[in-house]
This record gives sequence, structure tokens and C-alpha cells, in this order.
Amino acid sequence: MIHFPALFLDPVRCKKNIKKMAAKAQRNNLEFRPHFKTHQSLEVGQWFKDVGVSKITVSSLKMATYFAQEWDDITVAFPTNILEIETINVLASKIHLNLCVENIEVLLFLEKYLESPVGVFMKIDIGYNRTGVDSDDDSLIQGLLSQMSGIPFINFKGFLGHAGHSYRCRSKEAVEAVHQKSKEKIIQLKTKYKAQYPNLILSLGDTPSCSVSEDFEGIDEIRPGNFVFYDLTQNIIGSNELDAIAVAMACPIVAKHPKRNELVIYGGGVHFSKDRLEDPKDGVIFGRVAEKNNLVWGSCLPDAFLKSLSQEHGIVSVPAEKMNAYKIGDFLWVLPVHSCMAADLMNELYTPKGGVISMM
Amino acid sequence: MIHFPALFLDPVRCKKNIKKMAAKAQRNNLEFRPHFKTHQSLEVGQWFKDVGVSKITVSSLKMATYFAQEWDDITVAFPTNILEIETINVLASKIHLNLCVENIEVLLFLEKYLESPVGVFMKIDIGYNRTGVDSDDDSLIQGLLSQMSGIPFINFKGFLGHAGHSYRCRSKEAVEAVHQKSKEKIIQLKTKYKAQYPNLILSLGDTPSCSVSEDFEGIDEIRPGNFVFYDLTQNIIGSNELDAIAVAMACPIVAKHPKRNELVIYGGGVHFSKDRLEDPKDGVIFGRVAEKNNLVWGSCLPDAFLKSLSQEHGIVSVPAEKMNAYKIGDFLWVLPVHSCMAADLMNELYTPKGGVISMM
Repeated sequence: MIHFPALFLDPVRCKKNIKKMAAKAQRNNLEFRPHFKTHQSLEVGQWFKDVGVSKITVSSLKMATYFAQEWDDITVAFPTNILEIETINVLASKIHLNLCVENIEVLLFLEKYLESPVGVFMKIDIGYNRTGVDSDDDSLIQGLLSQMSGIPFINFKGFLGHAGHSYRCRSKEAVEAVHQKSKEKIIQLKTKYKAQYPNLILSLGDTPSCSVSEDFEGIDEIRPGNFVFYDLTQNIIGSNELDAIAVAMACPIVAKHPKRNELVIYGGGVHFSKDRLEDPKDGVIFGRVAEKNNLVWGSCLPDAFLKSLSQEHGIVSVPAEKMNAYKIGDFLWVLPVHSCMAADLMNELYTPKGGVISMM
Repeated sequence: MIHFPALFLDPVRCKKNIKKMAAKAQRNNLEFRPHFKTHQSLEVGQWFKDVGVSKITVSSLKMATYFAQEWDDITVAFPTNILEIETINVLASKIHLNLCVENIEVLLFLEKYLESPVGVFMKIDIGYNRTGVDSDDDSLIQGLLSQMSGIPFINFKGFLGHAGHSYRCRSKEAVEAVHQKSKEKIIQLKTKYKAQYPNLILSLGDTPSCSVSEDFEGIDEIRPGNFVFYDLTQNIIGSNELDAIAVAMACPIVAKHPKRNELVIYGGGVHFSKDRLEDPKDGVIFGRVAEKNNLVWGSCLPDAFLKSLSQEHGIVSVPAEKMNAYKIGDFLWVLPVHSCMAADLMNELYTPKGGVISMM
């Protein structure tokens, strides 16, 4: 029995999300290399094996070390941190490890200190402007390729991009437009370099584009992660319906303030993270309330939302006529704004039937 | 040797912050019951014992359980979560445990299930409007007092308020004004009830008011927490100078983008939290860069700041002329926007001389 904020996972919704994305990858002839930073769980990882997935993506070497217990082909989709060379060498000696590189400094370092073969993706900036080589910076791209070709332990795998700017979209049409532009940017590199590197892989991977689009012509691999759980942010972008959200935080109600139509829950920034969502109707929100169902949560309620978070407190705005339905000592189901961050903060996932799934 | 984002604590600055606040409490005849939710560490707690502190505040029963290893007078400054009655009974049988109560439901529950004596503070809303009984809701206050007086295991301790709205201030004068108004609201309750409860305690406790004000006339106890580390938010409120900030995150530089004058660091939302600060000059920021010093960080740089965070990435804006000073593989020192949240995300604190301090 749970007595404090707990993140619940609905395996039915989660497996449905996994199957749907795996089917999309298959019908588009794409390698499906899901990002595991969202669930961070070997057990959830098994559900991907069940649909034939054999290669994964992670965002840190720590996560790669954890998943290397059961997976032997892992891409670390983060600029290589040369300070972790020991971990890189340990992993590279055990599994097929792919790193991301975007500068000469890192290649020079790897040339000197690598002890086993690694695959290397060149990180390309396809419009997000967070990190990666500009897709039209021919001289840097050519320089990196030349440098790599002289390093025996480095096997150039291809170009990897992340259209993170799709998170700013608020409609399927806008996501599709971002996806098409990002795709063009990375495809031009294949056109340029496929003669020289006939096996080069183009890898894309944001959840919005992978959820919304059906056009992956020219792309070889997708790496979405968040879709495994989805969340309110993805919903407002257009990636998923609310009933595809596979996680919800169960939070004890500890106080009621009928004058303000507010509930106080045990569930704060240390559980949800302080990630926020600008909602067109309710302003900045930190979560939304879902109906109580039998063993799991039900529909998302249109008028009840998490309006603010302190370290341990959450303040929930509830319609006046519903205040009486909530009792001190009950659990309130809250759908998270950002499931990756909420999952990272929690140590395990609870399932409605009483199971506990451990995370990294 | 550290290879990944690590939160460093400067014991010199930290002990100075502790001594300063302890001295202020002493010269104002206040019980100093510091909030330990910021550092969450028995070892840092010892530095409070060194200045004579014997009573503490925490924000969860989990934290109370951790600190009960070494402290025997603990207030849980959070509305009592009745679902955790077992933990309450375990703690109440071992230490002086104080709970916060603001509704009849919880008192009725405690009456039925409490097995050992506890102290109870009535949580009063002194203007923050987050939680607590309205300070002018005489009938509810009277009702709660009557209810408590009939419960043998409950020892009414006094009224507890938190002026969290001081966090919206941006000057010492504004903080002082909030403090005076909050103080008035809670003092009127002492005036009303001291004949009936001659030993009742008035407890206040936000870091801004406790840092800025020298007027605690009528108050018995203070419970500040964040001051132990301070941070950029407290600085912009007016609580501390930048050189009082006692923690900084050391983050490996993993990429550089000279066209945008940006560095990419390994250090994201899972390290800093997504807490943000609206800076009058730089807009929304997530941290500020400090100079590199010998063993510790130096001054805060005026023009370098953390402009965005993903799960593991941080993007740092740096003046053009400084870009060459930063090398891939170096550590960047980043002062956090909110030290409580950053500390909660990390498992240990590193000290400049190579020590490691464990946290809850």
C-alpha cells in the first residue's frame, strides 16, 4: 500500500504506445532505436524486445552502463564527454557502443585514448540550434570525416539529428512542417556523402515528428523516447491523445481550501520536476487531474489542474462544484507535464495491479 | 576525480551563513529551528549542532526519519499526511515530533490512531495563500483548538506561518514590508490566545524575511532553510550577496558553438531542476557562470548564464571575447537558481579539498 506520491504506469497503454511506434517504423522500413531516457527501466525495456527491438538510444554513459546489462547495441545521443573515457572504454569492450561527435577536439582525444572500436555518429544541427554541426557547414563536416577516417577504432556510422524545435509546435501541421525541413537538411548530407560512405545511416528522433508524420522517405533510423509514456506537453503539441498517457502520479490530498477551490497535495517539484506548460486556457500549469477509476486513472478532467509547485506541496485548482468530491487522505491522480523528468525523479513505477517496476 | 556534473559545497561559505543566522536568532531572542530540506545531510546538520542548534524543521516524514538518527526534536512543516500514520507513530515514540494541522479531519484521525504524544502547530496562512488556516478565521481556529484540547496525545505548541510570498519580492524593502504584514497577522493570534495558552509559540520562517529583517519582536521561533546555501533566486530577492552562495555545480564542457557564443555543458534538468529565474537583463535563466578559481569557484561573471536546459544538456551563453577561454573537457562552475532543488537531485556534495558529503 502506497502512502506518499507514487508514479503509476499503466502497462496496457504503455505497450500500446510501443506497438504503435514499432509498427510505424516497420511500415516505413526504419530501424527503430528507441530512446530509453524516459522510462530508464530494464523491465520496460523488455516490452521493446517483445516487439523485436534490438538497438537502443540513451542520453548518458551512466544510462548506457545500466542498459548494457541486457542490451548490446547502444547509441549515446549526447556530445561525447571526454572526461568519461574510462567508462567509454569499458562499454566499448563489451557492447556495440555508438558515440556522438561534433568537434575535432573530441576526435583527437578519442584517437589517443580509445582502446576498443566504437561507432560514431556525427551530430548535425537540423534546426533546433541546441548542439551539433550546422548542416551546411561543409568544411567542418569534411574536416571531421577526414579526421575520423584516420582513426582505426572509429567506425563512422552516419549523421544524427534531433528536431527538438518540434516541441514549440502546437498543431500536427506545424510538427509536420518542422519535420519536413529537418529531414531535408539531413538528407542533403546523404546525397553528398553516400558515394563515399554507402552504408551511412540517417538518424532522426523527436517524439512529435515520429508520432505525427508518416513520411520518413530517405531516413534510416528513428529514436523517439517520450512516446513510451507520453504526457501533457506532447498532447498540446499534437503527438498523442490524452488517453495515451501511460503514467500518472498518485498524490495524497492533505488539505482543502474551499474559499479558493483549491486542494493541497503531497506532490511537489521533487516529484513532478518544475517543468511547466503554457496552457491557452489555464495559463502556466504543472499537471492535470484525471478521474479516479477502479484500479487506474480515468479521463483527464477539463477543469482541474496543478497550478503551482513547491518542493513537496502541489496546489490543485478544482471546479467549485467538485470540491466536495475530494477528501483528505484520498489519492488524487495527476497527469504530468513532462513524463521524462517525473520518471527520472522517482525510484520505481507502480502498476495498478500491485506490481513495482524498478528504474535505474 | 569527478567526470560528470557534481554539486560542490564550499564549507567556509556555508558555515559563515549558518553562524550569521544563528547570531541573528540569538540577538533577537529567537529559537533557531532551521529547515533541513535544503541540505538534507546529517554531516551539514553537525555544523548546526556546532553553533548550539538542537531543534530542526523538515518537509516530509521521510526526511524526519532520516534526521531522527541524530536529532530528537523535529517539526514537520507540511500538512499532516494521515496516510503516513505508521511513520508518525514510529517517530513519535522515539523523538519529540511536531506536526502541522489545519483541519478537523486530520485531528479526528489523529485522535483515533495516535499512539504516542506529539506536538501540534496550527498552520496559519499569513498571506502566501498556499496552505494554512486564514489568520482571521476565528471560528475555524477556535474549532481546531477545542478539538485538540480533547485529544490526550496532542500537545498544542502554537501557530506556524510561512511568508512564501516574500519570494516574489525584488528588494530588501519589499521583503521587509511582507515580513511586517505577515508578522502582524500571526501576532494577533498570540494576543488573542496567550491567556488560554501561556506557552504558545509563534513560528515564522522564510529565508528572505529571516535574512533581511532585524525586527522579530513578538515572534518566538524562526525556521529558515535555504540560507544555508543561498542561490541566485535569493540574491535577486535581496537575501544575500552572490559571494554567500555556498554551492555550485561543476559541469563538463562538451561542445562549443562560436557562431552563437554558446557552450554546451553536461548538466541539465536532472541536475539543476527546471527551476527558472526571470532576470531583468537576461530574461529567463537557469543558472549563472562563476569564475574558475584554485580549488573552488570565484566571482559570478556578469555576462555568462545558463540560458536553457534539456534532460542532460545545458546551453550556456558566454560573451564573444570569452569563448576562447573555455575548452572542451574543462569544468564550468554554475551557480544554481534554486539550491534546494539542485541539492535534492544530487546524491552527494563534493568539497573543494576532495571530501564527499552524503545526503539523504
